[in-house]
Amino acid sequence: MKTLEVLRTIASGERSARDVCEDALARIEASDACVNAFTERTAARARAEADAVDARRARGELLPPLAGLPYAVKNLYDIEGLTTLAGSVINRDQPPAAADAVLVQRLAAAGAVLLGALNMDEYAYGFTTENTHYGPTRNPHDPARTAGGSSGGSGAAIAAGQVPLALGSDTNGSIRVPASLCGVWGLKPTFGRLSRRGSYPFVHSLDHLGPLADTVEGLALAYDAMQGGDPLDPGCHALRVQAAMPTLSLGMIGLRVGLLGGYFRLNASPAARAAAALAAQTLGASDEVEWPDAALGRAAAFIITASEAGSLHLQDLRTRAQDFEPLVVDRFISGLLQPADWYLRAQRFRRVYRDRVNALFRDWDVLVAPATPVSAPAIGTEWLDLNGTRQPARPAMGLLTQPVSFAGCPVAAAPLWPEGTGGLPIGVQLIAAPWREDLCLRAARALQDSGVAHLRSPTPALPQRGRE
Amino acid sequence: MKTLEVLRTIASGERSARDVCEDALARIEASDACVNAFTERTAARARAEADAVDARRARGELLPPLAGLPYAVKNLYDIEGLTTLAGSVINRDQPPAAADAVLVQRLAAAGAVLLGALNMDEYAYGFTTENTHYGPTRNPHDPARTAGGSSGGSGAAIAAGQVPLALGSDTNGSIRVPASLCGVWGLKPTFGRLSRRGSYPFVHSLDHLGPLADTVEGLALAYDAMQGGDPLDPGCHALRVQAAMPTLSLGMIGLRVGLLGGYFRLNASPAARAAAALAAQTLGASDEVEWPDAALGRAAAFIITASEAGSLHLQDLRTRAQDFEPLVVDRFISGLLQPADWYLRAQRFRRVYRDRVNALFRDWDVLVAPATPVSAPAIGTEWLDLNGTRQPARPAMGLLTQPVSFAGCPVAAAPLWPEGTGGLPIGVQLIAAPWREDLCLRAARALQDSGVAHLRSPTPALPQRGRE
Repeated sequence: MKTLEVLRTIASGERSARDVCEDALARIEASDACVNAFTERTAARARAEADAVDARRARGELLPPLAGLPYAVKNLYDIEGLTTLAGSVINRDQPPAAADAVLVQRLAAAGAVLLGALNMDEYAYGFTTENTHYGPTRNPHDPARTAGGSSGGSGAAIAAGQVPLALGSDTNGSIRVPASLCGVWGLKPTFGRLSRRGSYPFVHSLDHLGPLADTVEGLALAYDAMQGGDPLDPGCHALRVQAAMPTLSLGMIGLRVGLLGGYFRLNASPAARAAAALAAQTLGASDEVEWPDAALGRAAAFIITASEAGSLHLQDLRTRAQDFEPLVVDRFISGLLQPADWYLRAQRFRRVYRDRVNALFRDWDVLVAPATPVSAPAIGTEWLDLNGTRQPARPAMGLLTQPVSFAGCPVAAAPLWPEGTGGLPIGVQLIAAPWREDLCLRAARALQDSGVAHLRSPTPALPQRGRE
Repeated sequence: MKTLEVLRTIASGERSARDVCEDALARIEASDACVNAFTERTAARARAEADAVDARRARGELLPPLAGLPYAVKNLYDIEGLTTLAGSVINRDQPPAAADAVLVQRLAAAGAVLLGALNMDEYAYGFTTENTHYGPTRNPHDPARTAGGSSGGSGAAIAAGQVPLALGSDTNGSIRVPASLCGVWGLKPTFGRLSRRGSYPFVHSLDHLGPLADTVEGLALAYDAMQGGDPLDPGCHALRVQAAMPTLSLGMIGLRVGLLGGYFRLNASPAARAAAALAAQTLGASDEVEWPDAALGRAAAFIITASEAGSLHLQDLRTRAQDFEPLVVDRFISGLLQPADWYLRAQRFRRVYRDRVNALFRDWDVLVAPATPVSAPAIGTEWLDLNGTRQPARPAMGLLTQPVSFAGCPVAAAPLWPEGTGGLPIGVQLIAAPWREDLCLRAARALQDSGVAHLRSPTPALPQRGRE
């Protein structure tokens, strides 16, 4: 049952929110030994929130827009009473969060029911959720494969049918990569749009929070419940702007859609190119478009990421480097030792780059590109052969997302199922001008309505509880 | 004749703008061989601008607020048709500016008459205007002494009576230090208040532009003509807000004034302390106030300054380091090699620091401190004895200004003439909460009206033309 149907059955009284909640808890219990999406379950809170929805309904109150919808959040979001792990063991020494993150507060206010915290790469520094401390999150479509990252738990929890909605974060692709590899919908909003207060930071200059969902309606409803400015978050520029719920009647009429070529074709496998081409064709794309300086944008994003992330963890790197994720620690240390000049040049370049990218949107409303170069690799994959070029597999998963988020544009990720992947999904990025999430969502809705993009249940069915 | 009197005589037709302009040109011609404030004179433009004012008057048009007022600008402001030197020889290879800097455009629109470009420390990196390429600017009150810097030409031109108004820039004190050492009024507005477009940058994160003037009315009129947002300057946050012209009737009634103690007392000579104490007493100060973390603020400002400034000049440092100012080049190179972590920590600290400083303004409207630790040192001074501590003389001139600008607060500098300086001035900083330039100007006006702060003509009179 998808988001709108869940909400409808609860609102109509066909099912109680508590019943929906128990179902989700049972599905998590049944599948998570295999998937390993959850690092903490909040069953007591979930039941209390669900019961509150049912009580409101019983009193005849008007229900809020997400009443009874189960969801979970990447474990870098503060959840009142739990320690915010951000994928690390170091953070276990921190006290429990005194309050929910702002976005969790907003989903709670909208009636959603929190089921737990989700696995991620340590401190969000990765694209595969091969977390050494908490184990890798496994791709529900093939448990030998990665779920993508760093919001791997968020993608896998939806793909496994555990929850219809999850929150992730995206600095260089961490919502779009797991959405792509797990075959779910994702939205990385405009940089500065959603409040980051109460989330554990990775890279202040680049961090975005956003939803992953089972349908475009799920994305849009969650996004709408979460948006609005936050005067206490210096990085949040947004005014309260109501998101237009994307409806069929809006359609794609008049939208100018282009398919990104050049860098985005060179760094994509045939299956990824096929997915993007099909999406572009479905949206009536007329031309191939060149994104300016994509490789430079990615390089600058790497430099800023390593410097800011390393600087944030300096004290722990000095005193307990051995407690860090082995896949992460060297990048932190080298990042904070980079010359200030590299960092400053990358930031200066970003302003020029953003202007060049934004100029594209004078001619285009939506630009289409694959979200990942390939479908989900096997866990432990070190190297990737991409159109004859040998690439380090883990960073390569961000090849197509980093240049886009570095410009700050909003992007929806749509799940497609091209041939030649052994039944695995590949996501497609639907990119719009800053602050035009509505265009991303309209294009996503058109792909969903056409049947080209959608979730699939894992086949064969996921192994049940007890499997090791 | 001071600013208001100049404007009045032109508006009334007592004198023509051209006559005022010729007078200023003659004063510059007579005194600048000694003072060395000007690096370029724009006599033809000045005469054309003055004639245009006279023509408007002849046609019976309403004159704009600065009609006919002579002024000059630090040579980091673009002047159409001239190469923007920014105190360097390297910039001579640049083409002439295609347009005036935004603030020059605004003064021109207000009817002011541009007489030329003013000397400064190379790339604004200094507090003394001991420029090796263009010679030191000399203090009109004692030509053996420094005029302060980096806007030394701006301070000296006003003190020498060459022009009643000059524009400078202030990153760590570069308006307030020369205002202090030359005995003129200065205003460093709130960070982000005035457009910096068309000026040569020094440190993007810290650069401010602002006026120096012969009277508080001159500061306020110039500031009002220049303020207003600039959508093309990403660092300019200001909306168009009309500055209240500070009038006697506003007075100081009800303003809570405090005198900064602690760090600001420890790093000030007895004369500087006496100047600040007299200003504070005149303004009815009730208490001594502790500025939080002043030394840390200064240290962080140093780190950000060196990194950003060094990074800006990387290419030239690589290929022609020998063409830089010897007093500057080593700091550029070391700055750009600083670890990114230092830079990022300094920026993170700045946010905390700013909040701590801003909290002071819940209890205080205006805070008073000396602008420099001492009065003008002799040109070439390497070391300073400050309350028994040996300090490197050039950086020490920013001891009291850096912590204040690092928080972004607006500051007016008022010229006082304490005993024990051999007749030299020392400025006093009048500091208010961000965006409250009006409070700085009210306090400045009160000091002017009380007779405590004012300009003095250099005595003995400046040597005339031909002196070497």
